[in-house]
Amino acid sequence: MNPVRILGIDPGLRRTGWGVLTCAGNRLSFIACGTVLTDDKASLAERLVMIHGGLAKIVAEFQPDEAAVEQTFVNRDGQSTLKLGQARGIALLVPAQAGLRVAEYAPNLVKKTVVGAGHAEKQQIRLMIGVLLPKADPKSDDAADALAIAVTHAHHRLSAVARAQALGKV
Amino acid sequence: MNPVRILGIDPGLRRTGWGVLTCAGNRLSFIACGTVLTDDKASLAERLVMIHGGLAKIVAEFQPDEAAVEQTFVNRDGQSTLKLGQARGIALLVPAQAGLRVAEYAPNLVKKTVVGAGHAEKQQIRLMIGVLLPKADPKSDDAADALAIAVTHAHHRLSAVARAQALGKV
Repeated sequence: MNPVRILGIDPGLRRTGWGVLTCAGNRLSFIACGTVLTDDKASLAERLVMIHGGLAKIVAEFQPDEAAVEQTFVNRDGQSTLKLGQARGIALLVPAQAGLRVAEYAPNLVKKTVVGAGHAEKQQIRLMIGVLLPKADPKSDDAADALAIAVTHAHHRLSAVARAQALGKV
Repeated sequence: MNPVRILGIDPGLRRTGWGVLTCAGNRLSFIACGTVLTDDKASLAERLVMIHGGLAKIVAEFQPDEAAVEQTFVNRDGQSTLKLGQARGIALLVPAQAGLRVAEYAPNLVKKTVVGAGHAEKQQIRLMIGVLLPKADPKSDDAADALAIAVTHAHHRLSAVARAQALGKV
């Protein structure tokens, strides 16, 4: 089975985490991770251009085959939801513009897949990323979260492929 | 005074209205308007690509000098706010990627500027667009709203220029 290269994105207006890994069968390998930062003195439109440019550069450099973006937690603060929604729109747009399929996963599923519990702390996610991807060196929680999203996609993607194979569709 | 070409955008995941006008002193002239539609059977990421492509085509065709986007009304339905936020992110991104300054106006200010009251109906906005821009032929409320946003920017832009001139800054 050819290795598949997966880009995970944890979007945010100020900090957008990203992580790239390859997945061949059940073997995961770390490729790279980081954070796209925006200048909070810039206008909203300019900050969205920064996120777009940063993510487009990563897609061009690492040439992922598939992408996964964390679903946004909708809270009672409409202004926060709106801000995150705007950043998330860009995170979904960039890989789709490159022709990639973009999967979406709820934060609870990401935690459950990586840590084994739906209510894990940021620290536990970082710890498990170190176990699952020993060569990973996330410098921020956002980068670790992005890798966790990529790991989640690797797992759920595989079960979808296995189901399709069992049904003779692949 | 050279005429300034203004693009107004009323973002939405399903329908994004757009309108272009020129403004020379206090004289407004209609150029074009329309709606970018997305296919609701497509994935969210694909729909955002459709909005991006549609708006980028309009920016390339009409070469506006400045852009204005309606501020999103934050309501109690977090899912709606998130959807609109994602579409709005693209509406802000496209003109900024072309190097345009992007102004934002609250819906109430748009209504007040165009109709004279902060709580105007869609029909009143369409009627006033017909008075202010006799050659305009908006086929949808979204296109009429987008022209109303462009008119709002033309008015507020002028008062800002007048203030700067009085202060000897232009």
